[in-house]
Amino acid sequence: MENRHSTQVNTVMPELSRANKRPLYIQLFDYFTQEIKTKRLPYGCKLPSKRRLSAYLKVSLNTVDNAYQQLLAEGYVESRPRSGLFVIYRTEHLFPDGEKFRNKYPDTESEPQSDLIDFSHGKVDISHFPFQFFRKYSRWLFTEEGSCFFQNGHFQGLSALRREIAGYLYQSRGVISTPSQIAVGAGTQFLLSRLLSILPGQMPFAMENPGFHRVRSLVRDLGIPMADIPIEADGLAVDQIRRMDAGTVYVTPSHQFPLGMILPVSKRMALIEWANQNNNRWIIEDDYDGEFRYIGRPIPSLQGLDRGRSVIYLGTFSKSLIPSLRVSFMVLPVPLADCYKKRFSLYKQSASSLNQQLIREFMRNGDWEHHLNRMRTLYKQKHQAIIQAIHQYMDKAVAVIGEKAGLHLILQINSRMNEKELIAAALQEGVKVYPTSIYYAAGLKPEHPQILLGFAGLNGDEIGEGIRRLSLAWKK
Amino acid sequence: MENRHSTQVNTVMPELSRANKRPLYIQLFDYFTQEIKTKRLPYGCKLPSKRRLSAYLKVSLNTVDNAYQQLLAEGYVESRPRSGLFVIYRTEHLFPDGEKFRNKYPDTESEPQSDLIDFSHGKVDISHFPFQFFRKYSRWLFTEEGSCFFQNGHFQGLSALRREIAGYLYQSRGVISTPSQIAVGAGTQFLLSRLLSILPGQMPFAMENPGFHRVRSLVRDLGIPMADIPIEADGLAVDQIRRMDAGTVYVTPSHQFPLGMILPVSKRMALIEWANQNNNRWIIEDDYDGEFRYIGRPIPSLQGLDRGRSVIYLGTFSKSLIPSLRVSFMVLPVPLADCYKKRFSLYKQSASSLNQQLIREFMRNGDWEHHLNRMRTLYKQKHQAIIQAIHQYMDKAVAVIGEKAGLHLILQINSRMNEKELIAAALQEGVKVYPTSIYYAAGLKPEHPQILLGFAGLNGDEIGEGIRRLSLAWKK
Repeated sequence: MENRHSTQVNTVMPELSRANKRPLYIQLFDYFTQEIKTKRLPYGCKLPSKRRLSAYLKVSLNTVDNAYQQLLAEGYVESRPRSGLFVIYRTEHLFPDGEKFRNKYPDTESEPQSDLIDFSHGKVDISHFPFQFFRKYSRWLFTEEGSCFFQNGHFQGLSALRREIAGYLYQSRGVISTPSQIAVGAGTQFLLSRLLSILPGQMPFAMENPGFHRVRSLVRDLGIPMADIPIEADGLAVDQIRRMDAGTVYVTPSHQFPLGMILPVSKRMALIEWANQNNNRWIIEDDYDGEFRYIGRPIPSLQGLDRGRSVIYLGTFSKSLIPSLRVSFMVLPVPLADCYKKRFSLYKQSASSLNQQLIREFMRNGDWEHHLNRMRTLYKQKHQAIIQAIHQYMDKAVAVIGEKAGLHLILQINSRMNEKELIAAALQEGVKVYPTSIYYAAGLKPEHPQILLGFAGLNGDEIGEGIRRLSLAWKK
Repeated sequence: MENRHSTQVNTVMPELSRANKRPLYIQLFDYFTQEIKTKRLPYGCKLPSKRRLSAYLKVSLNTVDNAYQQLLAEGYVESRPRSGLFVIYRTEHLFPDGEKFRNKYPDTESEPQSDLIDFSHGKVDISHFPFQFFRKYSRWLFTEEGSCFFQNGHFQGLSALRREIAGYLYQSRGVISTPSQIAVGAGTQFLLSRLLSILPGQMPFAMENPGFHRVRSLVRDLGIPMADIPIEADGLAVDQIRRMDAGTVYVTPSHQFPLGMILPVSKRMALIEWANQNNNRWIIEDDYDGEFRYIGRPIPSLQGLDRGRSVIYLGTFSKSLIPSLRVSFMVLPVPLADCYKKRFSLYKQSASSLNQQLIREFMRNGDWEHHLNRMRTLYKQKHQAIIQAIHQYMDKAVAVIGEKAGLHLILQINSRMNEKELIAAALQEGVKVYPTSIYYAAGLKPEHPQILLGFAGLNGDEIGEGIRRLSLAWKK
């Protein structure tokens, strides 16, 4: 016997069509959800039996069963033993017109201007990304087997990844570490903010001038006093640090940011000597693009020279792979690693375990070394292309700075135009180039405007054409 | 004429085998890289011509050409016009024995004890994860087309994702926002640390007691004064906030963490009234598992009731999807959103753009709603299973708290054993359960031990068996 809430099979009138691309059972499911949401099938109502509905609609019992299973799984109906399926849906939506609300906000992600040649230093070459490996391996990650990486991982980062990093850093950069000294995080800026909270904060933080603005703003925002150390032709003026009574020095020895020189070994040794005179002195070595060096032999990292006593080494996969994986790391001296563990064990890891595992697997099976070799060759070609184009198109008023390593260089321009005018004139010709004045602390200014050109994201033709346009823009 | 560094073709002796699974050209490439790395083919040495080598090795010209192209691409050799290929490889490795170094550190990722039933509240159900969608879509992400998400995105998060979030929150939680009020980040703890740096810090930060320990430790680490507000049977003791002269209140109204009660509308209104009496009062609403409610009608969020004037709404995809995507978000009132933009535009986005885009696409094409419906049904079943098992196995000395919503509940136990003893006894029976004492600020203690049980990561059988074992453990 059916109660008054039961649905007569002849009131069920879905328009099922075999011509429709959606399977019949989905069409039936859609029909029922619509009926339930609009309360034509109200709460407590009983659905027709599978057998009767399949006979009535002239579809297979299987089709009806599949639709009903889906309704059960999504919580629209529940099964009561020996009596059938009943609607139990009450809208979960406080405001069912959310669709309309959402459409009020058009997609504002702006398309880049297509003809513009952008010498951005934040971009990397993505056309030579190891697509195939990442495609194949991410396919595996999203399976039952891979799902062991779905939950939260270790607060310092996956230990298997830290092991790969320790091995790689030793081999290629001479960095000496154990996996337990390594902390992984979502970007070097993020890791730096954590590091600053465990370093002594009273003594001035010595910063390269010019230097990385994202680090300068972080230190300023944290209210830590700062000392600006000038950059000489061969990098940081190490002898000036002593006078400043600094506690921590931030330095980019492999490729000074932004000016691009490589810190010579003599200055490296002097810096380490300074740090080792006192237990409260630390050096932060930011090796943001240390993988890419075009001229000369590799120089060991500061961390390696110091055997990891006073140097914190910062590295990232943003340049060697892609920025949007958001996986960076730092190598801490043992006492700082202990502080870090005490302080942050209650904080969750910020980098995605999925992305960490992708990188780990990529490093482990040797693809990493091939990839780095390929990218080094590729960037060397781009580097040659930009140097060659500069010689071809630019006149003597333009000097190249910091071109021995990394993914950007500086053009120092002896011109009537100032930095702003040079950038504006370039844009008129369809070329985007970048200022360096933003990297200088107030008070200091270079004699001639210095324009920053990143070349990693452009191909050889774009680089040549871009430099040609710049020469036109700046000749006027 | 060949110089003295050129390689005689009969000194090239690779062991090529067609039986080997690796293609011939890769075998040849491997042979040459080995010869180059060990300096048997030293720097400056010329490779045999393709034609001669192919004739000598009796392989196709194509095979030799492919191997040589690979050597070129990875920077082992360079091509000099009209004279051939020359070895230019100098080791990039400061310490070529990195492999040995790496193997010193065994993989320490520990395997979970297989028979252990773990009532962890940090886990979610992963067996019903939408594997297929994520597999298919991540496959697309790692193609030329998808590579537009490889570079850094907007510092607040992808605007298209923020648009989806705004629509969804309005529809399901009554949250009123525009995409420009939303900030995406790698975890709510991370977002909270940013939020605290733009909120007024002199007045006490009112915190639930007991409350989320990760928030308490963050506030303490930042040196912000704290006021502990007790939790009553129906949630936060709102009337006590007034006396504390607090500036900001942190609250989990949908499912108090850890005790699990739902804050009634009357208390919500009182809290909002308190905040709106003064421009410097803010409410932080952490809606960490607000999607899952089992009993009663949905209650609008505090943010919706307040129409977004004084409430900051925190949400995450860690519970509704998986923790390791590391994508959370907060909805800021307009004046705070302006502060946030000013303060953090120089900071890079911490959440992976790849993961953001995966979620965005999942939300956009309607799979999101189906997924939430399925998960709600699933968690409802697990919830019924745990309640039923408790009634079946536990005696009257055990009371259930906070079971109307969310992915965990509390067992309050009237026993001779204290919390530590209860947890140890459970572990003896192969069940891991969790303390609540760590969530209490010093000074306050519940009358009877309260044990926390998360059920999201277990299936129905494990839940039943776990509760059965607990009843044995605690009867002793």
